Amino acid sequence: MPVQIEKWDYFELVLPAQVSGNPFLDVQFSVDFTHQHRSIHVNGFYDGDGLFKARLMPDMEGAWRYVTHSSIAALDGQRGEFICTPPTDDNHGPVRVIDRAHFAYADGTPFHPVGTTCYVWNLQGDALEEQTLATLKRTPFNKMRMCVFPKRYQFNKNEPPNYPFEGEVKGKWDPANLNHFRTPPPPPDYWNFGCFNPEYFRHLEKRILDLRALGIEADLILFHPYDFGAWGFDRMPTEVNERYLRYLVARVAAFRNVWWSFANEYDLMFDRTLADWDGYFKLVQDLDPYDHLRSIHNCFGFYDHRKPWVTHCSIQHHNLLEVPNWLQQYGKPVVVDECGYEGDIHMIWGSLSAEELVLRHWLGFACGGYVGHGETYWNEEERLWWSKGGELHGESVPRLAFLRRIIEAAPAPGLFPLPADHNIRQPIIEGGWNKVSAGHNGTDYYLLYLGMHQPRFRNFSLPEGSYRIDILDTWNMTIEPFSEHVSGQVQVELPRKKYLAVRIERNR
Amino acid sequence: MPVQIEKWDYFELVLPAQVSGNPFLDVQFSVDFTHQHRSIHVNGFYDGDGLFKARLMPDMEGAWRYVTHSSIAALDGQRGEFICTPPTDDNHGPVRVIDRAHFAYADGTPFHPVGTTCYVWNLQGDALEEQTLATLKRTPFNKMRMCVFPKRYQFNKNEPPNYPFEGEVKGKWDPANLNHFRTPPPPPDYWNFGCFNPEYFRHLEKRILDLRALGIEADLILFHPYDFGAWGFDRMPTEVNERYLRYLVARVAAFRNVWWSFANEYDLMFDRTLADWDGYFKLVQDLDPYDHLRSIHNCFGFYDHRKPWVTHCSIQHHNLLEVPNWLQQYGKPVVVDECGYEGDIHMIWGSLSAEELVLRHWLGFACGGYVGHGETYWNEEERLWWSKGGELHGESVPRLAFLRRIIEAAPAPGLFPLPADHNIRQPIIEGGWNKVSAGHNGTDYYLLYLGMHQPRFRNFSLPEGSYRIDILDTWNMTIEPFSEHVSGQVQVELPRKKYLAVRIERNR
Repeated sequence: MPVQIEKWDYFELVLPAQVSGNPFLDVQFSVDFTHQHRSIHVNGFYDGDGLFKARLMPDMEGAWRYVTHSSIAALDGQRGEFICTPPTDDNHGPVRVIDRAHFAYADGTPFHPVGTTCYVWNLQGDALEEQTLATLKRTPFNKMRMCVFPKRYQFNKNEPPNYPFEGEVKGKWDPANLNHFRTPPPPPDYWNFGCFNPEYFRHLEKRILDLRALGIEADLILFHPYDFGAWGFDRMPTEVNERYLRYLVARVAAFRNVWWSFANEYDLMFDRTLADWDGYFKLVQDLDPYDHLRSIHNCFGFYDHRKPWVTHCSIQHHNLLEVPNWLQQYGKPVVVDECGYEGDIHMIWGSLSAEELVLRHWLGFACGGYVGHGETYWNEEERLWWSKGGELHGESVPRLAFLRRIIEAAPAPGLFPLPADHNIRQPIIEGGWNKVSAGHNGTDYYLLYLGMHQPRFRNFSLPEGSYRIDILDTWNMTIEPFSEHVSGQVQVELPRKKYLAVRIERNR
Repeated sequence: MPVQIEKWDYFELVLPAQVSGNPFLDVQFSVDFTHQHRSIHVNGFYDGDGLFKARLMPDMEGAWRYVTHSSIAALDGQRGEFICTPPTDDNHGPVRVIDRAHFAYADGTPFHPVGTTCYVWNLQGDALEEQTLATLKRTPFNKMRMCVFPKRYQFNKNEPPNYPFEGEVKGKWDPANLNHFRTPPPPPDYWNFGCFNPEYFRHLEKRILDLRALGIEADLILFHPYDFGAWGFDRMPTEVNERYLRYLVARVAAFRNVWWSFANEYDLMFDRTLADWDGYFKLVQDLDPYDHLRSIHNCFGFYDHRKPWVTHCSIQHHNLLEVPNWLQQYGKPVVVDECGYEGDIHMIWGSLSAEELVLRHWLGFACGGYVGHGETYWNEEERLWWSKGGELHGESVPRLAFLRRIIEAAPAPGLFPLPADHNIRQPIIEGGWNKVSAGHNGTDYYLLYLGMHQPRFRNFSLPEGSYRIDILDTWNMTIEPFSEHVSGQVQVELPRKKYLAVRIERNR
């Protein structure tokens, strides 16, 4: 009886082989997996201990066969098969872009990112990492931004449990280097970049799969500038960057919850050119058999998200009212992964009140986009959620759970900005911005977010049909029915409160 | 003994003349005023009742002589003189631009605009107009945006007491025309555009001078699109527009508190081209002997404020964090006359909470710009401050008085944005945006506005010297001393509150 693997889970082939040279560099190893008339070619990788592995995420149910190819005999011409079974309940496959502005899993289930950021939660040791997972279980988050490489920064002075390459850290890092993005010290020379440390990547994989078990997408940050000479992983030789990408794709592309985020704040990596970033995109696009989502995150100016290898916009910006412009400019989903974090640290980006962070989430959502969470409350242990995970201390998370409920109750695929009022004779929503619609012909659902506005009433001119109207208090997380059956012109009286939204849904 | 006129007050010459044709169109009348070796040429105007007038705002103390020129004998070759005396206490002359980003009166006293908007307060009848003046007296406002022409709009359905041209309103205005900016109904044909109504302009002058007595600049809006066929003053023939500008300049340019605002929402006047607007600017610049401030106010896209005839940017925009960009782009003072109004009406622009309006004022100020107030609380009488004046009902005004105190206590000429932190090795203010400096070499004064941020502390690296630090609560209007003598590196602990600012002043 062949092995059974659920659709969108992964099949792993393990083959032992004794290699005389460097098993990372000197061995070609790949596998062709075949289902009926269709074949997927994947690269294998060396996982240490004399073992070579190759992984496949099957996307069709039924019998799959494989045959191996290698430059060494022990890994060449091996054959086998497995059976792909139907996916079980919580497995909807990898996430894809749909309808230009939104996401859905491969099985068609809509996916609305409500993400958080714990950049290096996976490099904090098991106790804290398990605590992070336990915390995540109680949150609404379904996407996690996290780095492959360790991070050196304010509140990030600790060493990771181990390192991605063979070698040993020597000397002491000088804290004066912190934040010298433009002129970092020379990278250290104690890594053997020819040898990956499989243990490092196995741990990364374990944590990606832990997230997968919680229904959380791993938005994996492939490069970042927060190193400042601590390890030099931000300035490896060109061929090492590419080798690292090949190795990583071979290892983790078969995990359905992986997204490729090519950088955090790519524009703070001053020695990289745009051609370098284009090249990483194209390389990974070429290597990844599953076409996982690809994006790149800015500090100041945006990468040109219109480039064909970018699947969606990953944006750092504080002004969520720009979302409709970005949607129009790039024609792709807009995920504002970073708009500031709830917290009390001394950097402007980490000192937002909970109200303001929730406001920004709602603004982004009510403009047809998605917004990401982070938390930076200071504590003695320097365990700030935004980087290390652990516990949450803020007030925004329950409100984001409420927001996710509202998002998910809207018609698929999600919300689209309504045009501005001016010079439209009969606007659906009279009087201003921050409004979206959804559904069949965009007439099944309307949402008007009021934010810091406190009007006595707002007017609506509904298309033909009967509608239900609710008044949402996005801070206090209440839904008050205004009317269950209205049509035509309607004036909705509002209480004098901040953070309200008016939701209008067509009765079926 | 010749007449005595205070410097920057106005001298008025009145000459009777019987005219056979149309005294508005058929008579040339101008005056040359001479002080020592300097001469100012002004156009006179017909003021009805057989009287021609010409006005001069003298800007030099001492004896002035004049001689008249006219196409008719009665107005030609008349001579006379007056004495210009020193200005009295509250008279500082007209306002000018200084140091690219700020304003000062002609005598050098800094002028920091803290403006409000009552578009047609001057067309509401004496009772309400007197109430507006009484209210203004209790406010911090030193600039008023107001229109020459009457206004038709939501909450503006009343007729003005009289009209700028000879003629009589006929027929009934159809409310269905409201907001049809792109396709307004044809303008009515019942005006005799060849004859101004001097009474209309005399009343406008009276109200400009009432403001002058209160120390308030009159930011006079010359054209606006809020007519919708009510009177057609938004779509007069080209030659009438120019005649009107000539007449208005001849009448009011001698009032030192006049600013020329060429339009409100110029881009909603869809039948005007940019060349039209350029032409109005150039015409008024040519006619106005005193070079009063000139600006133009947008709805959507900005007019190009770099054009040489624009003295400062008059902006409608909600995002005050753009102020430093506009300062850089246009190289002129930035006055965000409209960023939304405190109120509760059903239009997004008129439903801001007081907190949000005060926040926007502080953001703009802490970015090196100026921001304008308006209030739109609904009431049965439809007397909304923003358009008709009357009484104020909101909570922002005392906070704007506090803001004005803070602005005026800063070193002249005013505040300039500090560059962003990133990639500066030793930023003055570590950790983020919204900060300004002022004074000698920009090192006498620093202000960091925190808005919706609640950091535990912020760090400062002060230049050589001793400084005093205060913590301002911009909403509760308190100033708490942090330290009277600090220098070098300093960490300022902060209470967990919104709307704080940190002010740092060099000790002298």
